[in-house]
Amino acid sequence: MNFRSQIDTRWREAQSLLCVGLDPDPNRLPMHLRQQPEAVLRFCVEIVDATADLACAFKPQIAYFHAARAEDQLEALIAHIHTRHPGVPVILDAKRGDIGATAEQYAREAFERYRADALTVNPYMGFDSIAPYLAYPDRGLIVLCRTSNPGGSDLQNLELANGRRLYEHVAELVAGPWNLHGQNALVVGATFPEELARVRQIVGDLPLLVPGIGAQGGDIDATLRAGATCAGGLMINSSRAILYASDGEDFAEAARRVASATRTAIQLSRQACA
Amino acid sequence: MNFRSQIDTRWREAQSLLCVGLDPDPNRLPMHLRQQPEAVLRFCVEIVDATADLACAFKPQIAYFHAARAEDQLEALIAHIHTRHPGVPVILDAKRGDIGATAEQYAREAFERYRADALTVNPYMGFDSIAPYLAYPDRGLIVLCRTSNPGGSDLQNLELANGRRLYEHVAELVAGPWNLHGQNALVVGATFPEELARVRQIVGDLPLLVPGIGAQGGDIDATLRAGATCAGGLMINSSRAILYASDGEDFAEAARRVASATRTAIQLSRQACA
Repeated sequence: MNFRSQIDTRWREAQSLLCVGLDPDPNRLPMHLRQQPEAVLRFCVEIVDATADLACAFKPQIAYFHAARAEDQLEALIAHIHTRHPGVPVILDAKRGDIGATAEQYAREAFERYRADALTVNPYMGFDSIAPYLAYPDRGLIVLCRTSNPGGSDLQNLELANGRRLYEHVAELVAGPWNLHGQNALVVGATFPEELARVRQIVGDLPLLVPGIGAQGGDIDATLRAGATCAGGLMINSSRAILYASDGEDFAEAARRVASATRTAIQLSRQACA
Repeated sequence: MNFRSQIDTRWREAQSLLCVGLDPDPNRLPMHLRQQPEAVLRFCVEIVDATADLACAFKPQIAYFHAARAEDQLEALIAHIHTRHPGVPVILDAKRGDIGATAEQYAREAFERYRADALTVNPYMGFDSIAPYLAYPDRGLIVLCRTSNPGGSDLQNLELANGRRLYEHVAELVAGPWNLHGQNALVVGATFPEELARVRQIVGDLPLLVPGIGAQGGDIDATLRAGATCAGGLMINSSRAILYASDGEDFAEAARRVASATRTAIQLSRQACA
């Protein structure tokens, strides 16, 4: 099953738009795990097992694994998700941005070594930085478009000579000529709902990965009004609020409570669809 | 010694603008190494030892190491360069592009785990994707600006409402308000010399990392006229032409011959400086 079908299925069957982000910060792991071998893997596996039925996807952030020399634990984590929670897609958040032979190596890493279902990528180098991943026609490519950090406006919100904004141009490319296999998606932050609505207008029913709920202050109601579709349309990411709900031995149950409350809050905010 | 001083010193003392790129493609390694353990490390160490006196810098491309599960070999390679060839800076080519806590992890990875002297980064997420690296004030940040691939124009060459091109805007930011420690540099391709000249005009004597010589077809003469300064100004990268000059047991000598010829060709093309 390709990435798009996986997400559509999760939206429908799990009734969830919640993407659980896996950002294992070594300084915030539960105290009883910190000194143990493979602490990162143990932590993430317990989080995954406690939240899988509530999630439309999991999104491990590769920077944490790279910094901790934990690439083997990331491989084991994704293998665990595929085995124990089949059908829940894994989005590898690596924001790769390179071309040609180098991008081919990044594609091998993401899709063969880690067996991710989708990868986040950066559009700055243009279509050449997308093309090598299209050799894996069933995998998702989630392209940075409009991010919710203050500096996001330094480039993304620049007005072009044709009157459009740079992020609108990216949205058009990713949903149009770059979407050769129908597996593309976009990263669009939650803190500017009017821009999220503009992206939705441009891209039809393309899935949007939305960081910035919770810790980053985005508003669920406004996000859903701006970006949801009848089928779902959004993968609303929450990482820290779920992962670090408790630093005690009850961390997995605490994570489940927060994930469940977030998923429910999202469902209650969704508009009825005709 | 900080990155900028290292490069200035290499330009002067080694009389070289040649950056040797380390892109160890498993399918192109010398035949006698392919089945050996740590083949990637052995290959790169021999290349490094054969070319260090001819190089202003080394640039390992991390994608090859990630795809080959060879992160430990990359650590060992960079440690080898620091020990055996002190003063030759290592540019980790990872084109990282993320913000906040995630970028802090990428900085830990590049500067603590791998002990790189400089890192390539992507500007699409704005200053927030630069700021976390500034916690390491002696390390270089080499920001993507104008790349030489055909798709580079999809975003970088867009005309802005103020008449400037997007890559010119990036050059201004990186050389100006983002250059807090004077350690910034830019990636600018060799295939559009008039744009390289335009970037040089904007950024003063900022170092420019120039891919696209050799395999990618850039012209050395035009590149130097457009971008060199009296001190040097350019880190002209060559990877495949050097690495794969021979796939026999003489690969390191062959690499040295090509590196030496490239360095000499660059020196002969440099204009006399008043």
